Amino acid sequence: MNITFCCTNTKAEPWLQGLQAALPGAHITVWQPGAPPADFAVVWAPPQQFMDEQAGIQALFNIGAGVDALLALRLPPGAQVVRLDDAGMAVQMAEYVCHAVVRHFREFEAYEADMRAGGWAYRRPRLRSDFSVGVMGLGVLGERVAKALAHFEFPVNGWSRSPKAVEGVRAFHGAAGFDGFLAASRVLVNLLPLTPDTQDIMNRDTLSRLQPGGYVVNVARGAHLVEDDLIALIDAGHLAGATLDVFRTEPLPADHPLRTHPRITTTPHTSARTLREESIAQIARKIAAMQRGEPVAGIVDPRRGY
Amino acid sequence: MNITFCCTNTKAEPWLQGLQAALPGAHITVWQPGAPPADFAVVWAPPQQFMDEQAGIQALFNIGAGVDALLALRLPPGAQVVRLDDAGMAVQMAEYVCHAVVRHFREFEAYEADMRAGGWAYRRPRLRSDFSVGVMGLGVLGERVAKALAHFEFPVNGWSRSPKAVEGVRAFHGAAGFDGFLAASRVLVNLLPLTPDTQDIMNRDTLSRLQPGGYVVNVARGAHLVEDDLIALIDAGHLAGATLDVFRTEPLPADHPLRTHPRITTTPHTSARTLREESIAQIARKIAAMQRGEPVAGIVDPRRGY
Repeated sequence: MNITFCCTNTKAEPWLQGLQAALPGAHITVWQPGAPPADFAVVWAPPQQFMDEQAGIQALFNIGAGVDALLALRLPPGAQVVRLDDAGMAVQMAEYVCHAVVRHFREFEAYEADMRAGGWAYRRPRLRSDFSVGVMGLGVLGERVAKALAHFEFPVNGWSRSPKAVEGVRAFHGAAGFDGFLAASRVLVNLLPLTPDTQDIMNRDTLSRLQPGGYVVNVARGAHLVEDDLIALIDAGHLAGATLDVFRTEPLPADHPLRTHPRITTTPHTSARTLREESIAQIARKIAAMQRGEPVAGIVDPRRGY
Repeated sequence: MNITFCCTNTKAEPWLQGLQAALPGAHITVWQPGAPPADFAVVWAPPQQFMDEQAGIQALFNIGAGVDALLALRLPPGAQVVRLDDAGMAVQMAEYVCHAVVRHFREFEAYEADMRAGGWAYRRPRLRSDFSVGVMGLGVLGERVAKALAHFEFPVNGWSRSPKAVEGVRAFHGAAGFDGFLAASRVLVNLLPLTPDTQDIMNRDTLSRLQPGGYVVNVARGAHLVEDDLIALIDAGHLAGATLDVFRTEPLPADHPLRTHPRITTTPHTSARTLREESIAQIARKIAAMQRGEPVAGIVDPRRGY
């Protein structure tokens, strides 16, 4: 069995060593243009030429949660695209989102600044019942985030394409449920896959429908959010602020206004990093299962986009 | 039945109205020096004179989680001291501690600063398995905090006076278990009651035994921590930093070095605020139960100190 590795901006050596240790019988190489096609590939943002040369490949394993960049390419006919199921990313997402929501809800940034400035003042505690959090996207990551928020006793709403029940979460679904979901939410957390249907889903119109004092947390893709609309709604006072991990242009330009806006917190696409060891173990398990003809989780439906 | 209200730094009117609504038959007044003794009292940091005038009082309800200030007074003979069980404080503590631990573990403060300065750089992800969190004190608040940390998959150690089992928490107890608890922990979270046994429990000796890169979160009482020892260990590089909500002197003096230390985050004793409605409902329920001769939870053992 041949496995090819084609991951942009990724140090290859530890991946090759790890995969080799997990699949001793495999022949694993770093892709070079013109190399013969492989049986399986481990990829991140490969070039189109890579795809064009993989006739007959069985599966492409994407080492990130989002497959939007991969699906923008022309895939080898018959190749399956396989997402990472979780590999340590869900707990990181739960951490990131809970940190952002709690920090805003509890006004910790303001308290810390008061303390540095020599103050000692209480703010009237905000009511948890006034802080409904709406989670868009209830896949592996979204479900974990919603449950973590519910653990802190926030009212949690969930919105997904098809109906989905998550314990402790008020469920909305489909286009028909979107307005009700927005109207019921003060904090909006985005964990949707990026598809033609979800691009620009957070815009002036939709963000205006959040409850007053609304807050946005985007941990999915920059193209989900119309950044100028967000800034305008914050400056107009309808939204209280935002925490953004992803941007329409990455890296975010050094002089971009999102970086220094006083009500916006930004991080460099670090909400959920791919953890190598866990990812290698998962990919090796799935390759072995596929060779035995068994079904595996995380196969992407290219028409749906995730 | 007479209820007297004697709470320093607390707006009396909403408490009186709430208690009256919950206990329509009660005669409720704000304590004045020289007033006749009452049957029950709702107190926060009352003066000794108040205690001296309450001969025959049945119970004192403290409207905070810690009773150390109250027990430092000479109590009326036979008076029971009753703590609030939770009243919304446990979830606030869980939020505060998880926010502090996650913010440190994920290096969000540094990422945010990088982004404001125009950067876009990854830091090597820290391993969760290297971040054991030790929770001192496993009462209602400590147990809730330990469970919330375990929900984020941190290895969690718990230390309590007497043996206590909490699901997902490695348990240590008593003086004999303290060294092992410290050696197994990198982050130390303090939720102990303040008693003669626990005063100064976080000092140069004990904090030195935390794993390298140790981090301190104090949400109990300032007198648990020898502040100068903490600063010295941080400056020496043995500890990575601290998040402190409580201080030996409160309000913290405006020019205190803890306020501006680059590795220390401070807040003004706001980790878990008393929520009035929930507290009133709980106190009213307990007074009614006591009048029926039924047992109530939260009775303080003055010899133990909590």
